[in-house]
Amino acid sequence: MNKFSPTVRGDAIAIARVLANDHVADIVEALNNEPRELAAELLSQVPFERAVEIFDQPELDDAPELIASLSRDLAGRLLAEMSADRAADVLRELSEPARSELLHAMAPALRHSLLSILGYPEGSAGSLMTTEYVSVPPDWTVARTLDYIRQVERTRETVYAIYVVDPDTHHLLRAFGLRKLIISQPDERIVSIASDTTPVTVPPLMDVEQVAHLIRKYDLLAVPVVDDDKILGIVTVDDVLDTMIEENTEDVHRFGGMEALDEPYMKMGFLSMIGKRGGWLCALFLSEMLTASVMQHYEVELEKAIVLTLFIPLIMSSGGNSGSQATSLVIRALALRELSLADWWRVALRELPSGVVLGTMLGLVGMARIVLWQYLGLYDYGPYWHLIALTVGLALVGIVTFGSLTGSMLPFILKRIGFDPASASAPFVATLVDVTGLAIYFTVAALILTGTIL
Amino acid sequence: MNKFSPTVRGDAIAIARVLANDHVADIVEALNNEPRELAAELLSQVPFERAVEIFDQPELDDAPELIASLSRDLAGRLLAEMSADRAADVLRELSEPARSELLHAMAPALRHSLLSILGYPEGSAGSLMTTEYVSVPPDWTVARTLDYIRQVERTRETVYAIYVVDPDTHHLLRAFGLRKLIISQPDERIVSIASDTTPVTVPPLMDVEQVAHLIRKYDLLAVPVVDDDKILGIVTVDDVLDTMIEENTEDVHRFGGMEALDEPYMKMGFLSMIGKRGGWLCALFLSEMLTASVMQHYEVELEKAIVLTLFIPLIMSSGGNSGSQATSLVIRALALRELSLADWWRVALRELPSGVVLGTMLGLVGMARIVLWQYLGLYDYGPYWHLIALTVGLALVGIVTFGSLTGSMLPFILKRIGFDPASASAPFVATLVDVTGLAIYFTVAALILTGTIL
Repeated sequence: MNKFSPTVRGDAIAIARVLANDHVADIVEALNNEPRELAAELLSQVPFERAVEIFDQPELDDAPELIASLSRDLAGRLLAEMSADRAADVLRELSEPARSELLHAMAPALRHSLLSILGYPEGSAGSLMTTEYVSVPPDWTVARTLDYIRQVERTRETVYAIYVVDPDTHHLLRAFGLRKLIISQPDERIVSIASDTTPVTVPPLMDVEQVAHLIRKYDLLAVPVVDDDKILGIVTVDDVLDTMIEENTEDVHRFGGMEALDEPYMKMGFLSMIGKRGGWLCALFLSEMLTASVMQHYEVELEKAIVLTLFIPLIMSSGGNSGSQATSLVIRALALRELSLADWWRVALRELPSGVVLGTMLGLVGMARIVLWQYLGLYDYGPYWHLIALTVGLALVGIVTFGSLTGSMLPFILKRIGFDPASASAPFVATLVDVTGLAIYFTVAALILTGTIL
Repeated sequence: MNKFSPTVRGDAIAIARVLANDHVADIVEALNNEPRELAAELLSQVPFERAVEIFDQPELDDAPELIASLSRDLAGRLLAEMSADRAADVLRELSEPARSELLHAMAPALRHSLLSILGYPEGSAGSLMTTEYVSVPPDWTVARTLDYIRQVERTRETVYAIYVVDPDTHHLLRAFGLRKLIISQPDERIVSIASDTTPVTVPPLMDVEQVAHLIRKYDLLAVPVVDDDKILGIVTVDDVLDTMIEENTEDVHRFGGMEALDEPYMKMGFLSMIGKRGGWLCALFLSEMLTASVMQHYEVELEKAIVLTLFIPLIMSSGGNSGSQATSLVIRALALRELSLADWWRVALRELPSGVVLGTMLGLVGMARIVLWQYLGLYDYGPYWHLIALTVGLALVGIVTFGSLTGSMLPFILKRIGFDPASASAPFVATLVDVTGLAIYFTVAALILTGTIL
């Protein structure tokens, strides 16, 4: 313990607290709560094996910065011992010159393997895969395979999925689980115990959401990444679980109308957060300015019938709300592949009557409110109050229908033009609906009220 | 094939198409696309083993209805052979009298085990667990454990997680992975190979989201459900993956401002969908009616300065948008346990300056627009146009700040009073902000414009 630097030595309680944890995940959690300098000092002091385990956890905050603050020698040894996919994750975000120096000092085979993972875009199967899986040639027996697994177990991320690979062509022939191996006779040949169904595979560029979909569908513990029939690596279920949680956070943030935060809320820098929110907020604000233009356009009508303005917030928000509902439905259905791009017209045919029914419900409530207030003497909407009630009711039918249609079609349109349908946020839909909603309201008003108060 | 009923016999192509699939997940997908009668007929004809595999897939649509349409005898045998957690799922939604009849006809041990799962509320660890796990007494050797696994492998949902349980007290002593067993010496004792760290366990009433959090944190393939130190069953990672995807769908639906759909969009009955959307839409509409009351309250001001109405939609939507952003941030941070209830004031201290900065940004843009339109002669805001610009700018600062604060605090408040924080939807926040936003706008207007146009 006397090797700790003076600033750290005083913090013996913090160190003890961190290391007192049973599980590595708890140590990581404790480390995340300490200042980065203390965490780095600690990582250079714990037994090497423990440090590898700690860096193998994707939950460790600031792993690239921590690696960079260690001695190059220790950092290099850690990267070599970590699982390949985690090492690639850390290298991906490591700043220069640490990144080049560390890559340079590596054994050529490891460097080659890490660079192959780094070559794939973030969020792709290739970027998530590990190259540390168990592969055996087809002519091995069960006993020999088990012996081999015993030898390599320590260096493999999972040994529960075993791949039969042609040693010459690297073609993936079969895949089976360790449980199959356990229950088979020792002298049986490996190919005969693996079922003859084609293994489920993914191409290296497949999006992680689709990988998750397949892993879930086929109840896999890992899925091989295959290019040109050759196996490149495997993606394991725990990586998919991690990535899915991240993607879900991104989806909710984007649905809330902002760029997704890539760090926990309390750890995010203030200015970065303003940036992620301010951009969309300004874009929405600029689009929403069209409402002011629409209002200016109808200024004469507004002056004649000030009573019409009373219902503007009510009517507009209803359009936005129904649009937001429809968008949330379609975004999830597209993400879960319940719907494809070609289904847009089936959705439209469903949202049209939905919008009419929902709009009629709200329209009746809105009309009832005007009638009630008028009868109870709570407010006087003037001699033509029944026509005003009719205007509000019909406008609500039109706007809720338009909102449902717009909200349900926006994700399709975004997908069609190459954007992520999940960018169709609630505020985005509301903004789209607001402008048209106003126009619908004033048009209905003109149709019904011209000759009376207009 | 000649056992098919006449209506089905003609559909031989469909049947062939369904059964031509390699993987059971693909068969399920194909079955889901066929009418229910055909699917039921098919399931009564496929080999029994295959039918068990098919019913074991949670992705199979209408499994309870399909089970009910089979002969009681076949249905009973299927439920007995399916994994316990799936059988409980099916029984939970099975209608009477099929449910009672099937439970009654079961072997007492199976009935007892299924009823114990059914006793836990939906979405709890207890309701998700399977009772088919591998448990061994502490004095067994590695070789004996492996032999035992070979015997029971076929009837266990997973053999990759092995639990050391005291045979008398049923207390869970240790947990370890099959890989550990493979690499150990055959004559070693089981307790000596399992690490002496306490196994991670969950209580039966823990929410599935929290279970997922733990499985992810500790990279587990399964987590034991423990009550009173006794092991009741295990929850496996694939069940968690399934449930998480469902929960995420629910979260997005609710964030969109509706009750979560429990069926795929295109399969959901029209009226059920209207019900799930209409309830919230009406509730929001009724709350939003307060905006009409606020507007009526400020009617005199509106008549004097009709120009103020032009910016109402613009200003109100900005409050809703900033609130929706803040809500999406806090909902996810709470779900990921980055924040706890006690952190509300830290969030408030962050959202307050965020709101001021974002509001100032929008306020400046809004003022620029008025100045620009006035100078370019696009619109005449009257002799006091600069005061109007100031009103809009200051109102935006106030409303965006209020929106950010409201949006970030709403999930905390909901959680505090016992609701799911994820019920804080974008439309819900927008509605809350709209009413107060209008009041803020008119108050600022009164402060700045009284004596000029007011």
